Amino acid sequence: MSSSNPRSRLRDINNTGFGGNSNVEGGRLMNADGSTNLKKRGIPVWERTSIYHTLLRMPRHSFFLSIFIFYTSVNFCFAFIYMLTGIENLLGVVDAHTFADRFMEAFFFSSQTLTTVGYGRVSPSGMVTNCIASLESLMGILTFAVVTGLIYARFSRPKAYLLFSNNFLIAPYKGAKALMIRLCTYKNNNLTDVEAQFTLAIHENDNGKSITRFYPLGLEISKVSSLALSWTIVHSITEDSPVYNFTEAQISESRMELIVSIKAFDDHFSNIVQQRTSYTYRQAVYGAKFTPMFERAPDGEYTLLELDKISDYEAVVLPQVVGLV
Amino acid sequence: MSSSNPRSRLRDINNTGFGGNSNVEGGRLMNADGSTNLKKRGIPVWERTSIYHTLLRMPRHSFFLSIFIFYTSVNFCFAFIYMLTGIENLLGVVDAHTFADRFMEAFFFSSQTLTTVGYGRVSPSGMVTNCIASLESLMGILTFAVVTGLIYARFSRPKAYLLFSNNFLIAPYKGAKALMIRLCTYKNNNLTDVEAQFTLAIHENDNGKSITRFYPLGLEISKVSSLALSWTIVHSITEDSPVYNFTEAQISESRMELIVSIKAFDDHFSNIVQQRTSYTYRQAVYGAKFTPMFERAPDGEYTLLELDKISDYEAVVLPQVVGLV
Amino acid sequence: MSSSNPRSRLRDINNTGFGGNSNVEGGRLMNADGSTNLKKRGIPVWERTSIYHTLLRMPRHSFFLSIFIFYTSVNFCFAFIYMLTGIENLLGVVDAHTFADRFMEAFFFSSQTLTTVGYGRVSPSGMVTNCIASLESLMGILTFAVVTGLIYARFSRPKAYLLFSNNFLIAPYKGAKALMIRLCTYKNNNLTDVEAQFTLAIHENDNGKSITRFYPLGLEISKVSSLALSWTIVHSITEDSPVYNFTEAQISESRMELIVSIKAFDDHFSNIVQQRTSYTYRQAVYGAKFTPMFERAPDGEYTLLELDKISDYEAVVLPQVVGLV
Amino acid sequence: MSSSNPRSRLRDINNTGFGGNSNVEGGRLMNADGSTNLKKRGIPVWERTSIYHTLLRMPRHSFFLSIFIFYTSVNFCFAFIYMLTGIENLLGVVDAHTFADRFMEAFFFSSQTLTTVGYGRVSPSGMVTNCIASLESLMGILTFAVVTGLIYARFSRPKAYLLFSNNFLIAPYKGAKALMIRLCTYKNNNLTDVEAQFTLAIHENDNGKSITRFYPLGLEISKVSSLALSWTIVHSITEDSPVYNFTEAQISESRMELIVSIKAFDDHFSNIVQQRTSYTYRQAVYGAKFTPMFERAPDGEYTLLELDKISDYEAVVLPQVVGLV
Repeated sequence: MSSSNPRSRLRDINNTGFGGNSNVEGGRLMNADGSTNLKKRGIPVWERTSIYHTLLRMPRHSFFLSIFIFYTSVNFCFAFIYMLTGIENLLGVVDAHTFADRFMEAFFFSSQTLTTVGYGRVSPSGMVTNCIASLESLMGILTFAVVTGLIYARFSRPKAYLLFSNNFLIAPYKGAKALMIRLCTYKNNNLTDVEAQFTLAIHENDNGKSITRFYPLGLEISKVSSLALSWTIVHSITEDSPVYNFTEAQISESRMELIVSIKAFDDHFSNIVQQRTSYTYRQAVYGAKFTPMFERAPDGEYTLLELDKISDYEAVVLPQVVGLV
Repeated sequence: MSSSNPRSRLRDINNTGFGGNSNVEGGRLMNADGSTNLKKRGIPVWERTSIYHTLLRMPRHSFFLSIFIFYTSVNFCFAFIYMLTGIENLLGVVDAHTFADRFMEAFFFSSQTLTTVGYGRVSPSGMVTNCIASLESLMGILTFAVVTGLIYARFSRPKAYLLFSNNFLIAPYKGAKALMIRLCTYKNNNLTDVEAQFTLAIHENDNGKSITRFYPLGLEISKVSSLALSWTIVHSITEDSPVYNFTEAQISESRMELIVSIKAFDDHFSNIVQQRTSYTYRQAVYGAKFTPMFERAPDGEYTLLELDKISDYEAVVLPQVVGLV
Repeated sequence: MSSSNPRSRLRDINNTGFGGNSNVEGGRLMNADGSTNLKKRGIPVWERTSIYHTLLRMPRHSFFLSIFIFYTSVNFCFAFIYMLTGIENLLGVVDAHTFADRFMEAFFFSSQTLTTVGYGRVSPSGMVTNCIASLESLMGILTFAVVTGLIYARFSRPKAYLLFSNNFLIAPYKGAKALMIRLCTYKNNNLTDVEAQFTLAIHENDNGKSITRFYPLGLEISKVSSLALSWTIVHSITEDSPVYNFTEAQISESRMELIVSIKAFDDHFSNIVQQRTSYTYRQAVYGAKFTPMFERAPDGEYTLLELDKISDYEAVVLPQVVGLV
Repeated sequence: MSSSNPRSRLRDINNTGFGGNSNVEGGRLMNADGSTNLKKRGIPVWERTSIYHTLLRMPRHSFFLSIFIFYTSVNFCFAFIYMLTGIENLLGVVDAHTFADRFMEAFFFSSQTLTTVGYGRVSPSGMVTNCIASLESLMGILTFAVVTGLIYARFSRPKAYLLFSNNFLIAPYKGAKALMIRLCTYKNNNLTDVEAQFTLAIHENDNGKSITRFYPLGLEISKVSSLALSWTIVHSITEDSPVYNFTEAQISESRMELIVSIKAFDDHFSNIVQQRTSYTYRQAVYGAKFTPMFERAPDGEYTLLELDKISDYEAVVLPQVVGLV
């Protein structure tokens, strides 16, 4: 980067929590889903993993598959135990002449106990078998208490449901240029007091050593009362901007990363929700503006927001502005 | 609108999230229940719908009806499956000579399995039937885990329980005029640190194109410590008001919409609650004031708040104030 | 009140939400438990009552008694229904020769269905009885889903667990006087960022009409980082205090009420908790100071907080300070 | 402490909630886990204990052991009751010739009732036994409702999962000295808007009486946007620091205690989380700096945080800076 670095006048910030000298070459700092591009080690995996967080973030089908696998495994274990303690202690077993038949009866007795359905055609007798069945039903209740809690936690977890444009644009704005992204909510949720924050990470070559500098980007509007329609967030590229006079080449050269953080209040969760994302220089579009994504309904009675147009843009010519540096 | 527009001196705001140039003719921006008058499309309905939000907002009877329909449908499906795999695998079926009788037994066996009541007069036998019954009881437990979570989420969802007056009034106030609405809580809940915010939307004709401008309205008192009694929120119509010198005709002509947002802390949910509503120009009453809605109890020991009087007003003569513009 | 009213210089506030002209004679504004001394009417009781709030605030024994009564009533109803549809449809009824015996069997069959225990000695047969039993078990599951939710909501509801002194004292303070109360937490909970707010209500006679004026009281320390020990909240009675130069008689005469509001962050609920209380003039003690309620443990290793001494005070002579009004 | 006390110019604070004159000799104010070093007495233990808080803080194995013990005890009680009301009222008891056998049957019937598994081989008959069984199944459902709630509350309780360095260091910093600690999150949770607060407690000898003074310590960075990597919190020891020019001996002599409070927003709980800890003078390391705990992964694609190095430091020579006092 040349000595006429336009950012030399600007203060970078060191409270992003990313560590400016972390020397991250090539990899992005934040993934598109807002998680940090980071791995931890040094303590055992079970100590550095929150099972709760993991089960909460798991896709729905994996979650229910996990429950099913757990349920089947537990039944297998208990079926073996019932076999070991003597199948004759399970009264009411019918036509179980082979080992497979007897195991099947033990397996389904176990499942009837675990779910507390307890038809009772097969029932335990004797101290040991009764104890095991009694423990299994207790375990069943506790397990499903955990599952009930998890399912509730999964669907009641406050989420922002934000849809971001695929790219950030360098668009004409008030006779000069601006950096823009667009977002909207894609579900029937209702966000109010929505705040946006842009942080720009620029990788620089400082005497042969790659360092990362962070700059906050000022926004034309950083808070809206309600996120009813789409919101195009605009960083006006003035002289105070760290990307002032950047050419398309410099965007790539600086391997810039735009970190976007949105906080809002969700009416229905009555809670603060937060979503973050990041754009790398590969997602920049130089000289483009977003095309409208909402229109008046034919009968004029309501507004129609077209979610599939969130990333739509059209190429435009950028004004030639020369800085006075 | 004439060139002597009294609002030309005032700054309108563009951070309402509604999009000033959204061209919404005729239709209101916000519905009376605080939801946005907006439809979304462009992505499949299941992706743009939060089932959780939908089930939370559904009226109570629809919610329980949905559960009942779901329960019956699932039982029908499983009854068919049990019929397909052979009714003879359900031991204990009595007097089931016709198809209908056998289907009924399968149906009720299914319901006993799904709810885990499991009387056991009818019980499954054989690998396939046992597997299905085992899956059904697991499904029953998971389903009712979801239902338990939903019911809890429905009744524990923080709500403000605010009752708003039907109209907004233009009333005499301190020798001039003021715009007023009234509200109170209608349940035995306890709101503290209650904040109100008024935003006025005015539809204007700008060279033949209808545009919407938004103005914040200053309030005499915008925060009260506790919402014990009713609260009449007052916007004093001074020279700085966007509706200064508006006549009754101009209120209609501007097709104004008053967006009211209330935030408060609820003692019992220990959470922030929020409620919004909107008034259109059709709900304006020009020259009226609210009549009192609380009085001292006969024995002087407590205050009596009469909720049915929330919208009561009486006609009054407005002072003739002429602006100095 | 005389024309030399020392409060004439002070601004009273009108954002307490209580309504200054509410004309409340004799009765207090807020009860000691922080609820407002107010009744609502005008809309039906079921519309103005939040069942959720009611069940949450109910004492524990009433809550469990309600569940028991509900459970018994529902079983009675269903027992009658089973009798009406024919007891012969309940298979397995034994030795039920009298009506009472048959009713008993129906009653306990109902309870086994509602709780989904379903022993199965008695089991339903026939379309109608099966349908009713199926509905009852669904209803049982939904009911206990509600109960599970309520029990969780009851014990997880953020509460401050604050213990207030019985009286407010007028104590010597820095050569002059101060109004003081004392509080502490009485459970093993941990409050941080604790904020206190004092509002004084004074009933005045304004040309024969009783009006209520509210004054905020400045506090020496209004926020503490952590409420580990007890906290004596101090309002120094300077010239700017609305009770400056008040004599013991004037305290009664003004029928003052001190409204105390405490907000804090609870570590374990990870939530804001709030508790309010109010003191009337009858709880004033003129010329007293709190005696210490904590001491070092004999071994010096920890501090000992004696909760039963929260209200202990000793009489002291107040300094004679004369105002310069 | 000498009369040339460098802190005489500094204001200590009295809003820590600890009570400066609490005379705590020897013992620390706060334990390492952030709880206050305090005991309460004066009201009965059940009134000053929140069972909810206790069950929430209990280690996992103690929690599940408590449930198991409770379950077994309840079954014992009910088994006795069934014996008292006559084992002959439990139909279906098989081969129960001895008292032990009969008690066993009663015990397991009780467990089948409490968990609502209800096989039905044994079933109640007669008014009294039926009533008891009916109550037991109701009690079972309510108990497991409580347990479900508790399990959910335990795993959904917002926690910060912060790992602190074992020591606080006096390290070289910008030509002078600084007091430093280091922290990071050790689980896969995501903290944003992380705020740190340092409070220093110094025990002084004031005319033979030990008093405790509290000082806030200014931080170089007191808030970071995101706690992705580790964070070394730095208090620069300038002339305004209460530990300015402290020698290693003075650190011990003053028996200082550093109270650290961290507040953050957790993405997945969507809630504020808080964690506190405290360091005593015994944990001070004079002349040391933390060694790096993160590095670039070999492939350059992500950053690797080594949790076991959180407390690692290396000895360094401190600059000799002499104050101008």
